[in-house]
Formats: sequence, C-alpha cells, structure tokens
Amino acid sequence: MKNIMLLGSTGSIGTQTLEVVRRNPDMKVVSLAAHSNITLLKQQIDEFAPELVCVYDEAKAVALEKQLLGSKTKVVTGMDGLIACATLTAGNIVVAAVVGMIGIRPVIEAIKAKKDIAFANKETLVTAGHIIMPLVEKMGVAFLPVDSEHAAIFQCLNGEHHSEIEKIILTASGGPFRGKKRKDLEDVTVEDALKHPNWSMGNKITIDSSTMVNKGLEVIEAKWLFDVAFDQIEVVLQPQSIIHSMVEFKDGAVMAQLGTPDMCLPIQYALCYPQRRKRIGKPLDFKTISSITFEQPDMETFRGLKLAYEAGKIGGSLPTVFNAANERSVALFLQKKISYLTMADIIEEVCQEHQVIKNPSLDEILAVEQEVYQKIDQKFC
Amino acid sequence: MKNIMLLGSTGSIGTQTLEVVRRNPDMKVVSLAAHSNITLLKQQIDEFAPELVCVYDEAKAVALEKQLLGSKTKVVTGMDGLIACATLTAGNIVVAAVVGMIGIRPVIEAIKAKKDIAFANKETLVTAGHIIMPLVEKMGVAFLPVDSEHAAIFQCLNGEHHSEIEKIILTASGGPFRGKKRKDLEDVTVEDALKHPNWSMGNKITIDSSTMVNKGLEVIEAKWLFDVAFDQIEVVLQPQSIIHSMVEFKDGAVMAQLGTPDMCLPIQYALCYPQRRKRIGKPLDFKTISSITFEQPDMETFRGLKLAYEAGKIGGSLPTVFNAANERSVALFLQKKISYLTMADIIEEVCQEHQVIKNPSLDEILAVEQEVYQKIDQKFC
Repeated sequence: MKNIMLLGSTGSIGTQTLEVVRRNPDMKVVSLAAHSNITLLKQQIDEFAPELVCVYDEAKAVALEKQLLGSKTKVVTGMDGLIACATLTAGNIVVAAVVGMIGIRPVIEAIKAKKDIAFANKETLVTAGHIIMPLVEKMGVAFLPVDSEHAAIFQCLNGEHHSEIEKIILTASGGPFRGKKRKDLEDVTVEDALKHPNWSMGNKITIDSSTMVNKGLEVIEAKWLFDVAFDQIEVVLQPQSIIHSMVEFKDGAVMAQLGTPDMCLPIQYALCYPQRRKRIGKPLDFKTISSITFEQPDMETFRGLKLAYEAGKIGGSLPTVFNAANERSVALFLQKKISYLTMADIIEEVCQEHQVIKNPSLDEILAVEQEVYQKIDQKFC
Repeated sequence: MKNIMLLGSTGSIGTQTLEVVRRNPDMKVVSLAAHSNITLLKQQIDEFAPELVCVYDEAKAVALEKQLLGSKTKVVTGMDGLIACATLTAGNIVVAAVVGMIGIRPVIEAIKAKKDIAFANKETLVTAGHIIMPLVEKMGVAFLPVDSEHAAIFQCLNGEHHSEIEKIILTASGGPFRGKKRKDLEDVTVEDALKHPNWSMGNKITIDSSTMVNKGLEVIEAKWLFDVAFDQIEVVLQPQSIIHSMVEFKDGAVMAQLGTPDMCLPIQYALCYPQRRKRIGKPLDFKTISSITFEQPDMETFRGLKLAYEAGKIGGSLPTVFNAANERSVALFLQKKISYLTMADIIEEVCQEHQVIKNPSLDEILAVEQEVYQKIDQKFC
C-alpha cells in the first residue's frame, strides 16, 4: 500500500495526484496540506478521509476545523503543521507539490524521517540542493522527480550508467512568446502571459514558463537531481511538447521520453516506480503527429534562462536570490504592479548586488530569501 | 578481452565492425568469414591476424590459401568452414553479419557452443526464430541486435519490464520512393533503387529498404527478439532517420533512441553491452536539426510490408517462403531480369501457393528455401 502525504493538494499537481490515487486502488492518502483553499480541501477530505490535514493559513485552518467537528481528520497549521503532514508515521511517500521555498523544511524533515519523496517543488532543490541531495543519499530514501522534464530524464537513465552521460537535453516549449523579441514583450499583460500553448498549470509556473525562468530553475534542479555539470545541460526548444527531455550518452546514443502533455503520467510514474501502471491520459498517436520541431532558445530576449545558468554556476546562496527575486517579481507582475520585462530586470539587479555565501545553511538560505523579499518590497510595494 | 568471430567481414556491417575493433583496444578478431572477396579479406587478415578465416567459395579459398603460405592464419571453406569460424574455442562473441539464410546454421551452432551473438542477419530470425530464441534461452547466451532499429528498441527496454510493453514503434525512412504510387514505380531502375537517402548499406538491403520488405523483415525479427504480438508492432515513417525506433509502455510513456545514421553506434553497443564506449561517429546536433516528421506507411504501394505482416502472422514456414522469394526476386532485379514491381508480385504468388508447415525443423526450412529458389528460377532464369 502506498500511503501518500500530499503537500499542495489544492494546486495543479495536487489535484492531478488525487486523480492518480483514484485510479490506483493500492494508494491511500494519509495527509493533505494546502495553503488556504479550504473549500476544495474540504471536498478532498470528504473523498479521501486523510488522518491529518494542514492549512498553512491559520485563520483558514480554524474555519476548516469548525467544519470538521466530529470528523476523524485532525487539522494543523503553519510550518509545524506542514512538517507534521510530511512526517506522519502512517505515510511512506511525500508528494512535495507546494509552490516555492516553503517546501524546503518539510522536505528535509520528511527525508530525515525516511520518507520517499515524489518531488514537484523545484525551488527546494534550486536553493538547497547541496543540503538535500547528500541527505537523500545518507538516509537512503527514493527521490523521484515529478516535473515532466526531470521524470523524462529519469526514465532515459533507466538501466544506464551515470558515468556514461554525455549531456542532458532539457526540452522547453518556449511558452506563449516564443519567437518574440524584447520590443514585442513591452506591453504583455497578465492575461497574455497566462496562456500557455500546451500545458495546463498553476499561475506562477505558467508565468515562469513564459519568461523561461522555469526552464532556468529546471536546469539548476537537473544539476542536483542528476549530478552533472552546468555545461552538460543543454536547453532545446521543442514547441509541440512531445519530447519531454533527452539524455545523450558518451557513445552518441540519445535516449528520449515522449508523451502527451499530461502530468498524470509522471506523477503516477513517481508514485509507482519502478512499476509502470495503466495509462490515465491519452496515448501519443503518430497518426496525428506530423512533426516535432527544434529551435535554439533566445537567451537575450528570455534573460531568465541566462541568469539562471549564471546563478547556478556561481552557486552558493545565489540561486536562492535568483529564485526569491523571481518569486516576488512574478507576484508583483500578477498584481499588475510591474511590467513583464521588469521581472528580469529585478532578478538581474538583485543577483548583481548580492554577496554570495558559499554552502549556505538552511537558516542562511531562509534569511537570504527574506532579505530579497524585503529589498524588492521596499522598492515596489 | 572481447574475442570476436566476424561472419560477413567484407560486407557493410563487417567493415564497420572492424572500424569498431580499431577503436577499442580490448577487442580482438579471432576469426573472419567472407563469401568471396579475398582481396579485401587478405587486407583484413594482414591487419587483424585472425586465427581462422573462412572463404565460402571454395575456389577463392584455395586462391587465398596460396597467398597465406607461412601465415599463422588457417583457411577453411563452405558451410563447415563458416561453422568453424562461428564456434572457435578462443572466441566469445559472434558478429553474425552475413546476408541471407546462409547464417542460420552457423548462428545455431555458435549458440550451442555458448557464444554470445551480436546479430545482424535478420533472415535467420525471420525464418528460424522459433528455433533460435528458445535455444538462446536454454544456453543462456546474450543475443544482441545490431540493426539500428532493434538496437534502439533494445536500448528503450533498458531497465524496463517486458510485461509493461504496450507496443513497439519501428521507424522507417521510407526509402528513396517514399510518397510514390505504383504507377510511378513501373520504370524504376536498379540505379534508382540503390540510392538510399540516409543510410549507406549493402545492395540487397538497400533494395529491400526501397520496397519496404526490409521493414517487413524487421517486423518479424522484432516479434522474435522482443517476444511481442504482431499487432503490438507499428511501423511509422520518419524520413530523417533520427529516431531509430521507439517503445510505448502501458502507462503511455514512449521511450525513443535517437542518433545519427551510423552503424558503428549499434555495433559497438552490441559488442560492449552493458557498457557504452566513446562515440565513433558524429553526435546528434539539435542546432542543425529543424524537424523530425512522421508519416504513415503506404502498404498498398509498398506491398512488401503488408505481405511480411501476413506471412509473419500465419508463421510456420511462410516467413521462410516470403524471405526466400524476396532474396531471389532482389537478385533477379539486380541482374535486370525482372522489373521493380515484379518483385512483390513474385513474393505474393509464391506465398499464396505455399502449403504452410507449422513449426518447421531446420532441415524443412532449408528445403523450403531451395524449393522457392527452384520455383522462381524455373520461371525467370
């Protein structure tokens, strides 16, 4: 029996994880955690009857607790609540699907408690990969990527030897603004940026996808997940999102994983690895695919990707700065307080001003995050 | 040390195998076998100093023996000689790269002698798969495909479970006549048919590729190599020959192997499996690939593929008839004795007239082959 602890249950990955659970009778949800959407969370509790739920927002947690009077489900709140949900005795695998650096502590505590991790919280690896990956190895837990790109790479590495990797080829759709130049992007609205051509995802990741910051975060994530150098990671645009990523081996063979753009596949794969279960979405149909095209990323227009490579290569606390500056910039853009192109300007400026800490501790990472937030808020809020 | 017994050393796969040997200092050639090209064979003997060589043609064997007076290399001839080359005590792996059914006995004897097989002689599996595969299992030898398509599928299955295969997707370039209709093919010359767009191969396989009989043989070969049903094997045209083949798993994930059209890759892979060695040919460069396109095969124009599926599904001695009729037809076409479209007519007619033997023995297979040859020769020679 897979006893699942689902952090971020009301988000896009969260709801799709529950769809996977519905299709697999040997899966059970033992805890759920959400930020504040207690309406949806209440429905999930009614359906899945978890032992424990966390509502990160305290007031909402109190409101939910009232609705659950007499229920077997216990309600907790805040970071302590999130950690409790990630370390439940009855649970054996955490689906880390919260958005942002909020996921770091629960993931670390889950690994320490010897829970396997199905991982969809890239910010955690981007900022604390140097802490997480050695801990994963020390505790001997499984750490399985859920992102479609990293799940693809993971599958390409099945039965292969790490020493034989030549490079990792991360594919990117290029988002809604592929082919545009800077001048075309000056007046982009929130609504424009939220229209992703292929994938249906949450708002933050959809904006990140349009700026290619998402691909930048994935590059850093890949570095940690697959223990390769940055110059072994290449980004190729593949606008149809059919090839989910590839690995080139030193003999010249390239292995690729292809599929429809459906997150249920990588979620189910991570939860059932090394088994493959029955397909949930549609199959790829080569009768209807006429072509797969490739383009090189335009890192001058989509500076987020270039800045991510730079931050990743320097390392230390700089990826935390990159990520936090991006989180705040996206929030400000979604609130219509800054323009589309200003997001990259903010990231670049804040990264340049930062004094890098080598091998930052978790407390230092979280302190740097707060500093970045404050710095940006002072300027724009 | 890999001690290689190379059957078919003067052909396309043979010479490329020797290129792989040159690049890998831990490989040694202990025997070579060729049909009749003793000029090239002599050069290979001078370079690789094998213990034993076979020249299938007896007169040529005698001629070569004279040239080798005083040499340590012993010369043998005929089927007995071929079998001696395939079962040499010093050898541990046979590269079966002869063309046609001549390879059956040597491959069977090599397996019985517990030699691993790097397999590039598809006619052997097409006609005797029901004998070979159980023998491979019984003797516990490795049986590694060298054909780029089957090598790709083999790689896609690395680390996967056989029970989770949904289907095998064999890619085909479509050859020089892709998109043509029957009326366009009436006047095709030998020279036209020998112009393959992507791969440099021997004459027989190049003609087979143009008629799609080659893909039909590969379908039957895949059935035996990967133990799947014929309706689990799909052929898709992929004219750029970048995707070498794919496997769809039951969860909807499709794994693919991509590469440049260079046989050194699958040859080296088969010889070194499970290791991957340093690349010999060029790498795939996504900066120069603009697209990969897909089309459905036209089985009305390229009837060879359809006839192969039919012969394979009925099984027994019928694939032998299909293969022998094709071998003779291609020979007659190369001799300019019949037209291009007549090849498929002959195959169809001979297959229809055949009384199928279920589970034919090796002697029955070889007898059926001779019957087919005689039947066609009586009519056209």
